[in-house]
Amino acid sequence: MDAVTYDLVVIGSGPAGQKGAIAAAKLGKKVAVIDRKEMVGGACLHTGTIPSKTLREAILYLSGFRERTFYGRDYTVSKDITVADLAFRVQKVLVRELEVVRAQLNRNHVTTLSGTARFVDGNTVEIESAEGPTRVRGEHILVACGTRPAHSPTVPLDGKRIIDSDQLLRGEMLPKDLIVVGAGVIGLEYASMISALNIKVTVIEARPTVLDFVDREMIDSLMYFMRQRGAAFRLGEKVERVGYDEKNRVVAFLESGKEIHGDTLLYTVGRCANGDLLNLGAAGIEADARGRIAVNEFFQTSAPHIYAAGDVIGFPALASTSMEQGRLASCHMFGTYCEARSAIPYGIYTIPEISIVGKNEQELTAEKVPYEIGVSKFEELAKGQMLGVDTGMLKILFDRNTRKLLGVHIFGERATEIIHIGQAVIAFGGTIDYFRDTVFNYPTMAEAYKVAGLDGLNRL
Amino acid sequence: MDAVTYDLVVIGSGPAGQKGAIAAAKLGKKVAVIDRKEMVGGACLHTGTIPSKTLREAILYLSGFRERTFYGRDYTVSKDITVADLAFRVQKVLVRELEVVRAQLNRNHVTTLSGTARFVDGNTVEIESAEGPTRVRGEHILVACGTRPAHSPTVPLDGKRIIDSDQLLRGEMLPKDLIVVGAGVIGLEYASMISALNIKVTVIEARPTVLDFVDREMIDSLMYFMRQRGAAFRLGEKVERVGYDEKNRVVAFLESGKEIHGDTLLYTVGRCANGDLLNLGAAGIEADARGRIAVNEFFQTSAPHIYAAGDVIGFPALASTSMEQGRLASCHMFGTYCEARSAIPYGIYTIPEISIVGKNEQELTAEKVPYEIGVSKFEELAKGQMLGVDTGMLKILFDRNTRKLLGVHIFGERATEIIHIGQAVIAFGGTIDYFRDTVFNYPTMAEAYKVAGLDGLNRL
Repeated sequence: MDAVTYDLVVIGSGPAGQKGAIAAAKLGKKVAVIDRKEMVGGACLHTGTIPSKTLREAILYLSGFRERTFYGRDYTVSKDITVADLAFRVQKVLVRELEVVRAQLNRNHVTTLSGTARFVDGNTVEIESAEGPTRVRGEHILVACGTRPAHSPTVPLDGKRIIDSDQLLRGEMLPKDLIVVGAGVIGLEYASMISALNIKVTVIEARPTVLDFVDREMIDSLMYFMRQRGAAFRLGEKVERVGYDEKNRVVAFLESGKEIHGDTLLYTVGRCANGDLLNLGAAGIEADARGRIAVNEFFQTSAPHIYAAGDVIGFPALASTSMEQGRLASCHMFGTYCEARSAIPYGIYTIPEISIVGKNEQELTAEKVPYEIGVSKFEELAKGQMLGVDTGMLKILFDRNTRKLLGVHIFGERATEIIHIGQAVIAFGGTIDYFRDTVFNYPTMAEAYKVAGLDGLNRL
Repeated sequence: MDAVTYDLVVIGSGPAGQKGAIAAAKLGKKVAVIDRKEMVGGACLHTGTIPSKTLREAILYLSGFRERTFYGRDYTVSKDITVADLAFRVQKVLVRELEVVRAQLNRNHVTTLSGTARFVDGNTVEIESAEGPTRVRGEHILVACGTRPAHSPTVPLDGKRIIDSDQLLRGEMLPKDLIVVGAGVIGLEYASMISALNIKVTVIEARPTVLDFVDREMIDSLMYFMRQRGAAFRLGEKVERVGYDEKNRVVAFLESGKEIHGDTLLYTVGRCANGDLLNLGAAGIEADARGRIAVNEFFQTSAPHIYAAGDVIGFPALASTSMEQGRLASCHMFGTYCEARSAIPYGIYTIPEISIVGKNEQELTAEKVPYEIGVSKFEELAKGQMLGVDTGMLKILFDRNTRKLLGVHIFGERATEIIHIGQAVIAFGGTIDYFRDTVFNYPTMAEAYKVAGLDGLNRL
C-alpha cells in the first residue's frame, strides 16, 4: 500500500507541533500530526508546563499563601495537603486541556496519527504503533519532538525518593523536606512551590549564580523570599553522587566534601532533546550530543524542506516561544509573510513569579547605553494590599536621552500578565512618558507602571 | 493673624486632591491640602473604591468562589462568613492605605490641614475645626471635594436594613437576601458581590437597560452569570417608596404595582457632589443642582485660577481618572506641558469583572466604521482552566480595511489588568497584526489577545 502524502507531516503534538499544524491547515494545506497516543499535547501538557503551572495554582490556593498577610505566616486553608489534593486539580486541567488540543486539531481538519515516528528518508516517516508500522509521506516535515528529562549515572532515580520532575506527583505523600539539584527555571519553580507549602527545601547548583538572563535584583528578591520560607541555597557546589544514608535518608555527596541529607531529592539538571530518537540520518540531518537540531532563522534544518521548532531546537524552550516557532515555520514553508517581533517576554513561574521583557541592566551597561530606572513596590499599590501582597516590584529601564523604554522587569503577583503592557510599549518604540500620560484602572497591579513611570521621570 | 499663603490650596484629599497636590509639590510649589481629619484619602479610601474592592477580594477568597469549578458550585472556604470577617480585611487595607497616602503627602512636603473648608473669597478658604476657624490663602485653588451618596425622601434609610453603600459593612450580619435599588456601576458591583456569597439578590432599575457605555455582550454575560447565582433583575421599574411590611420585612413598592419584599434594601441611585457645601458663591463660581462644578478642558472653573477635578466634575468619576485630572490640573496651572491620552480604560469590579477601552460595536456602527471582531473564550485558555475560570471572554474590534485596533472589551478574571495591553496598542495606532506577531507568556490570561487576534484575522 502506498504511503499517503501530506503537504506537511508534523512529528510531535506539543505547542510547536500543534500551532505549526494549525497554521498550515489554515492555509488550506493537508496536514498530519504524529504522536504517541498517550502523549498528545506533548511534554507541555503531560509533564511540563500544564501540570507544573496547575500545581502552582493549586499550591497557592490550598496553602492559603496569598492570605498570609491577613491571617499570619502559618495560615493554611487545608491543614494537611496531600499529593492527591494537588494531583486532582492537575488531572482535571490536563483532561480539559487535552480536549481543547484535540478539538483544535479536528476543527482545522488536521489528521492525527498515533505512534512513534522515525525517518525512512527525507520525505517518508514510519509510524510504529501497536497495530504495526505504517508510512506517510510529507512534502514538508516539521520536527517538533520535544525533550525529556536528562538523567545522570551518578543520580540513580528510583521514582520514589530520588526523582525527576515527571515523578513528583506520582508519590502518595508530600516530602517532609526536599533537596533540589539544579537551579534552572524548572528547579527554581518547583523549589519555590514546595517551600510555599512550608516544606524545607535545599537547592544545590553547580554554577555560582542562577538564571543569568534575569535581572539580579529580581533573583535576589526571589532568593531572599524563598530563604524567608526556610529554603537554603548551595550555589557553586557540584553533586558527586546521590544515594541513601544508614537512616534511609537520601544523601547528596558534594565535591566539596559536604553531605546534604534529606527526605526526597528532585533532580532537574537540564533536559535532553528527542532528536536522537528519530533516525535523522536517513533524512540527511543530524542532532547534536544533547539531541538538539540546528535551524536557521526560518526554522529550516540543513535539509530545507525539513523544519524544526520548539524545545528540540534549544533555548528558550518555553511553550510560548515554541508555539510561535511552529507557526512561523509553517508560514515560511508555505510562503506566507510572517514577522517575528523581537521583544519576547519570559515568564518564570516561581512563587512569587518573575517576568521580563527587553534588556536588563547588565546588558545595557555592557552596551554603554545611558539608562535610568523607575521602580514601583507592590506593597504600596492599593491592589497589592487587597490581594495580600507584601512583596514584589516592577522596574522599568529607559534611555535617559531618548526616554525610550528599553526593558521591564517584574517580580511578584501577576508579573507574567502585566509584562505584556511594557512589551507593547517597547514594540511600538514608546517612551517612559507613555506611563505618565496614560490612565490605568485603579486598583490594579498594572498601576505599577504609572508609579514606576513617575518615579523614573523624577530621576531625570 | 494673617492667613498663610500657598501657591496651591487643595480642597479634598481623595485621589484628585492627592495627585494634584503632589504634582504641584514636585514642581517646587508650596501646597496645602484641606480635609476633615477622619476623611483623609477621601470617599475613595473610606467608603468607596478601597472598601468596596477590598470587600470584593475578601468575598472572592472567603467564598471559595474561584474554586467552584474544581469543588462544585456550593463550595465555600468559610462556611459561615460574617460581616466581621469581611470588615476585618477592609479595615486592614484601609489603615495601610491611609499610611501610604499620608506618607506620600509628607514625603512631598505637602501641608495637611484638618477641618471643613469653605470659600471666603476667590483666594481665601476658611477651615472650620474643633480648634476654631483658621484661614489660608491660595494663589490657585483646586476643588476636589468629591461626592456623597444621594438620598431620596421616598427611601428612608435607617442604617440597618434600608441602607446605602456606606452602611453595608456596619451591620453585624450579612443580609439573608438583598434588594438593590439602582443598577449603576456601584449597584451592580455590590449586587454581584453579594450574589457570589450565594445570597439571593433582586436588582431594581428604572431604566430598561444597564451600563449603556458597555458592550451589550459583556452586560448580557454579566446578567446571565448573576442570574445563574440566583440574582433577579427588574429593569424598567421605578421604586415609588420603600418601607417595612407586616412581617417586618423590607418592601419596595414599584410604580407598576408590584411589591418586592426582602431582608435588606441597598439604595445606590447616584451620588451627589459636595460642591454645594463650599460656599462657592463667595469665589464667584457655582455648582449645578447636583452639586457638580463645570470645568473646561484644562479643569478650570469659571474663575481661571480655581480648578476642579475628580468626582465633583461628574462622569466618569473613577479613582483612576480623578487622579489624572488632579495631576493635569496642577500641570496646567503651573505651566508644565501635559498630554492626556484619549483611550481611557473603564474598570467595573463586578464578579466577574469587566473592563473596556476604545470604541464599542454600537458606537462603530453609528459611525459607519466597517469593523470586524476577534474573540477568545477564557474557558479555552490554559490559564483559565488552572484558575478555575469557566466564564469570560475578550473581544477585540478592528477596522477591516486599515486593520487598526479600535476597541477591547473584556468580561472575566483579570479583565481590569489585561485591558492595558490593548490600551497600549490602541494608543500607538497598532493593528490586529500585533497580536499575531507577538509572543505572549503561556499560560496567562493575556494570551486571550493572541487567540482573539488570530480569530479576527481568520474572519478577513
